[in-house]
Formats: sequence, structure tokens, C-alpha cells
Amino acid sequence: MVATDILKDLVQKTSSRILLLVCDGLGGLPHPESGKTELETARTPNLDALAQRSNLGIAELVAPGITPGSGPGHLSIFGYDPIQYQVGRGALSAIGIGLDMTPQDVAARINFCTLDEQGRITDRRAGRIPTEESARLAALLQARVTLPGVEAIVRPEMDYRGVLLLRGEGLSDQLSDTDPQITAVPPLPVRPTAPGLDAQHTAELVNRFLDQARQVLRQERPANGVLLRGFAKYPDLPKVADRYQLKAGAVAIYPMYRGLARLVGMELLPTGKTMRDQIETVRQHWSEFDFFFVHFKYTDSAGEDGDFARKVRMIEEVDGYIPDLLALGADVFAITGDHSTPAVLKAHSWHPVPFMLHSRWVLPDEAERFTERHARRGSLGHFHMSQAMVLLLANALKLLKYGA
Amino acid sequence: MVATDILKDLVQKTSSRILLLVCDGLGGLPHPESGKTELETARTPNLDALAQRSNLGIAELVAPGITPGSGPGHLSIFGYDPIQYQVGRGALSAIGIGLDMTPQDVAARINFCTLDEQGRITDRRAGRIPTEESARLAALLQARVTLPGVEAIVRPEMDYRGVLLLRGEGLSDQLSDTDPQITAVPPLPVRPTAPGLDAQHTAELVNRFLDQARQVLRQERPANGVLLRGFAKYPDLPKVADRYQLKAGAVAIYPMYRGLARLVGMELLPTGKTMRDQIETVRQHWSEFDFFFVHFKYTDSAGEDGDFARKVRMIEEVDGYIPDLLALGADVFAITGDHSTPAVLKAHSWHPVPFMLHSRWVLPDEAERFTERHARRGSLGHFHMSQAMVLLLANALKLLKYGA
Repeated sequence: MVATDILKDLVQKTSSRILLLVCDGLGGLPHPESGKTELETARTPNLDALAQRSNLGIAELVAPGITPGSGPGHLSIFGYDPIQYQVGRGALSAIGIGLDMTPQDVAARINFCTLDEQGRITDRRAGRIPTEESARLAALLQARVTLPGVEAIVRPEMDYRGVLLLRGEGLSDQLSDTDPQITAVPPLPVRPTAPGLDAQHTAELVNRFLDQARQVLRQERPANGVLLRGFAKYPDLPKVADRYQLKAGAVAIYPMYRGLARLVGMELLPTGKTMRDQIETVRQHWSEFDFFFVHFKYTDSAGEDGDFARKVRMIEEVDGYIPDLLALGADVFAITGDHSTPAVLKAHSWHPVPFMLHSRWVLPDEAERFTERHARRGSLGHFHMSQAMVLLLANALKLLKYGA
Repeated sequence: MVATDILKDLVQKTSSRILLLVCDGLGGLPHPESGKTELETARTPNLDALAQRSNLGIAELVAPGITPGSGPGHLSIFGYDPIQYQVGRGALSAIGIGLDMTPQDVAARINFCTLDEQGRITDRRAGRIPTEESARLAALLQARVTLPGVEAIVRPEMDYRGVLLLRGEGLSDQLSDTDPQITAVPPLPVRPTAPGLDAQHTAELVNRFLDQARQVLRQERPANGVLLRGFAKYPDLPKVADRYQLKAGAVAIYPMYRGLARLVGMELLPTGKTMRDQIETVRQHWSEFDFFFVHFKYTDSAGEDGDFARKVRMIEEVDGYIPDLLALGADVFAITGDHSTPAVLKAHSWHPVPFMLHSRWVLPDEAERFTERHARRGSLGHFHMSQAMVLLLANALKLLKYGA
């Protein structure tokens, strides 16, 4: 009963346009004093008016109880079951910091760690060193490590994390982690996890990298070692052009979301630093694409910081953009999130996210507002987010009848 | 989209505790006069107050329209899809009467039956003889049957049913039933249904048992024969410790439910004969476990007896325990049933069961009471019970984020 299997025969090119706004970490939980969520607390006259002319629903990104990372969350929104399509941690980290991976590259997540004099791990996160310190160490490694025949790219990610990307011919991602996930033991050597010369060769290269990294970081404190995990190639996902017959443009500011959009074949549109810039970018490219993905980050950032009031303000800021987004004149306009980030949890959460779908062809719900609780009662019901793209295509009249 | 596949990488040990109360046969149907179900009729101030601070939903144990036995019902609650994980009838019967099966044992369900002088079946249930009569016949067989090299254990189950358990080396459960499912023909001999010496050897032993049983029961009336079906070994299910990283304690009075809990690796806690004893048992072991399964039988018993008023009283009795259960201080508290047992049907039924989930991290529904109809409108929606454990783990903050 997966609509994707029959979709390819039904999609057709039309002149209609779909606009998808993803407010990162949109869903929330009640403030302990008011009993109201961030969406319920915010003044959102524009979202509310739209809700009254739309269909609402509540969507699971992965499965009930599973907290989605940004990768699985966005893949689900783009119509890819995130359990079927798994993106390795290394690739996701590389995408997240904006590295353009080629199909030959292999990437791994780096944890900067602390080793004692015997080379045993005493802290897997090196006291959670800040990003600037990771950046300095990554630059050191980048400058001093050399591997025969391949390029080793080392970049900081956030806090104590970084990325190692190997670029060259004949590389494999079938490699074991060096992170033993416990302390008081040395990092593990990398071993090939599949037969074949490529995996063996790549393992040897990575072990050389580890030897050199140990020398380079020897005198550093507190981070004097690296742990590697999640070796991964760039995942070969089906592209939205093939799957949906869509020419899709992505307007996102942060590298992670640009990377995720590129993963499914969207074109990345250069834009500015604000939502105002993003809307202007969409407007300028309006005639060139039939699908636009617009990403708004700051609902999530405020939630992650545990700042309920700021998340409320960010939602109100989004509300202020709704008239301009509507003025673009999309045939279908949808608003949702890639996961919930309740301020009271200060983290992504497993709670399903509200979803709003507006087009000329909806039978409106009786919702008064766009909130989690209104969405739960919405006519789209409690559905899996990976089904949403089919609804958007249908409302854009881009799908033929199934069967005669 | 099966969360189980990814769960193993996400679960982590924490100090949080989950309390799961299963009220056997909880769901019901309206009384013909009042139009209200047992839950709707009962006075349940504590359940109602809890419902107002919880998420509700209505859960399918197996699949829409399928009436679950206690085995599939509980497996589903414990997070095991009961169509994927089938427990053979023989093993379920052995578990149900409290026999401790070893991995070598093979068990079969016995029906005491009536044979005519030519050895043809005239009644497959021997006029539904009562349990005491089956107990006497089982004791006779136990005393007189001897098999070479293996121990044959014969025990009564309920009414005309019993259990045969063979204990020894090299036994197989790949055997055909002797019950032809029709009358006027003799019982079938047992045949191996798989190649190999073990199945052939076990078939010979069972046929010897059948020969001896015919001699032992020859003069009995009305039950003078046995039919065997559902040969099964003890099923090797994944254990909750591996699957969920849970140290789980089961507090159940009846052997069947203790057996089902043991099947998934829960520790059986000795307890008394009342719910009051069970709660005290949980309290005493509170620090030793992070998951407690508490089973309450009498909602089902009253339903099976068709006693609507008694089922209402049993629900009210459960309601009286809620304050003490809440006082245990679990981080997550869930209440549900393993199937419906409407008094008007006097039997298990296919109706999905109400489910209530309480934790600090729920966005409460707008339910006023804990009833089937409120549960149907609950935010957990109409879901498959085998997903419930993931929700409990999520609400206990025992799951890491999926993907970066």
C-alpha cells in the first residue's frame, strides 16, 4: 500500500506550482504555567486565517515515539521513508557543513577526544570543547596529514565534532568505527567490514590518518585524539525530477538543509540571510521551478535553547511572512516541520508535527487556528509524513487517475 | 516503516521507570438498555482525572477484525507483532498452566474426546467434560504412560483440554496433528512434517503415547480418547533486555500471563492474590527494575461470564487502585487491555482497546474520561499496539534521536 510504487505512472508536468514551507522544529509542548504550546501561545492571525481555509493533520516523520534528526525529518517531508532511505552519519555530517560530496568520496564523523598517556580514552568528547577549538584542531590536521593517492579533508562541525572526508579512487565505506563507545580503552583500529580490496585499502589509509593525527595532536589539551564513526558514501537517492516530475528549487540558509535538498535532486538557489531574502529569491525564480522548498531555521534554534518566549516570537515572525508567501500565488501551499522541538525539552522530540495544506481544492476543516491540537483534529488525520508529497501533487492537479 | 529495526541503536539505559497496567479484556460494548459500555457505565473519577492529563488512543492488537487470544494480545502490548511472532498452541497451553518449558521440550494441546467401538471420533470434546474430570484423566495418563528415554508430562488445562509435554533430548515439533477436525473418522496417527531423524523419532514416541493412552482410557466415559494438536517448542523470542535495554519485572497472578512475560524475558516477581498485593510487590522492587508489567485479570473474567454489572464493578475496583499506582512515581504510566471482552458477547472480541499514556511529556488530549469513545477520539489515534512500547520508551526519554 505504498503510493510511491504507482506514482511514477501518474505524475505529469503541469504549469501549477507548489510552495512548501518547513519551519524547523515547529511542534511544541505546553508551557508549565499556561498549559499552552508555543503555537497556541503565539499571536498568528495570518496562519489562523489560512487554517480556516485549509486541511490540517498531524504527521509522523519516522514512526510513533521515534525522534527524528533533521536528515530523516526532511527526507520524510520530501516523500522518502526515512527507515528505507538511511543516510550514513558521515555523509550527513559532510552534507551538514556544506561539503559537496562526489560519488567516490567517503566521509566519517570525527569526535575530538581525550586520551591518557597509555592512549586510552578518558573522555569521548574532550570535555565538549567548543567549535572554535575543533576548528583550530581540524585546521592543524588538514595542514599536516598527508595520505598517498587520496585527499583528506578535515573540517569542524559543531562543538567537539568534525568531519573527515577522503577523496580519491577506489574508496569504500565498508569500515568499522574506531569509537569503542566506552572509556578506559584505546580507540579501535579501522577494519574492513566487507571483503574486497577497496575496503582493505581504505582501512589502511584511515589507519594511517589515525597514526598521523595522534602525532599532530600529541601536545594538545584537552583534545589530543580523534574517534571516527559512521563511514559513508554519498547516498544515491531517487531524485524528485524522476520521482515526481518536479523541477524543484531549494531556498535554505543553513548548509544541512541545502545538503538534504541536494540529496533528492533539488536545485540550490543562492539567497541571503533572512526569510525576507528567501521569499525574494523564490519570487525571482518563480517562473523557473514548479516546486519550492523554503526552510526557516529559527523555530528550532529557540526550542533547542529552551527559550519558549523566543520560539513564540519566531512563530509570530513566520506568521508575518504568510501574506507575502501567499502573494507568490502558489497553487498549493503547505506548512509543516521536520520534527518537534518543544522548548520545555530543549531538544528534538518524538511528537508528531502539525501539517497544513492549502489549495483551491481542499474541503476546509473546522479549525480556528494552526496549532498542534487543532492539527490533531484535522481531516488529514494522523498520517505518515512521507505521504505528504502525494497530497501536494494531487492538489496541484499533477496526478493522473489510477486505473481506468 | 517498522521502528523495531532501528530501535536497537536508539535505546539507552536511564534511571526513568515505566509502569504498564494491563486490564485483561478491558474494552466493551454498550449494554442494550443503557447504550453505555462497561467503561462508560463505571464511576471512575481517578481514571477520568488521569485521562484529562494524558494521551488516549485506540489500539489494534493483531489487525482490524481479528480477535486476539491472550498470547497475541500480550505479545502485541510488549511490542512484538503477533503475526510475525507466533507461539505454537502447545507451547501457549504449557505456558498457560505454568509449566516451565526448556528449549528441548515439545508440547501439544490435548483434547479429551469420545471414540466409538470402532475407534471413530463421535465427539471431539467428549461432551465438554469439566476440568476436574480432565484432571483425573490426566493424572491417570501421567501415572500409567511410560515412553523410552523421554519424560511425558500430562496436565489438565480448562474443561476438556489438557497439555502433553515431552521432555528429553533430540525432540522435534515438526509433527502433524492427530485431530482430524471432523467426527466419524478415527484420530490420525502423528507424522513427521519435516525430514530428519528427530521428527521421525518424536513421531514414533507420540504414536506410542497414543497407543498407551487408548489402553489407559479404554473403560472411561464419556472421554475415552485423546486428540493432539499444535506441537510446539518453547519459542525463542527476542528479550526485552536486548530489544529495549529494559530490566522488566512482571507482577501477574495467573500462570498464563506470567508465562507470557517470561517469554519476552521479564523477571517474574512473587506476589500475593490481590491487586493490593501486586502494587505492594511493585513498590518493594521499585529500585530494581525500570519497567513493571502489572496484570489485572478480573475485567476479562466478568466479561467472559457475560456479567456486565460485575465488569463495571471490576473497572471501578481498578479505578480505586489508580492513586496508589500513581504514587509509585513512574515517569511513564500506561493503561490498556490485551483485547476487548464485551459482556454482551461473553467472549474475547475483535474491538480495538482503549489505551492511555501519561507522562510529563504529553500534550494532553481534550478527553474527559477514559472510555472507548474518548479513546477513539484521542490523539494517539487508531494505532497498532505493537508500536506502544516505542511510545513508552520515548516518553521515558530512553530513546536517542534517529539520524543527525
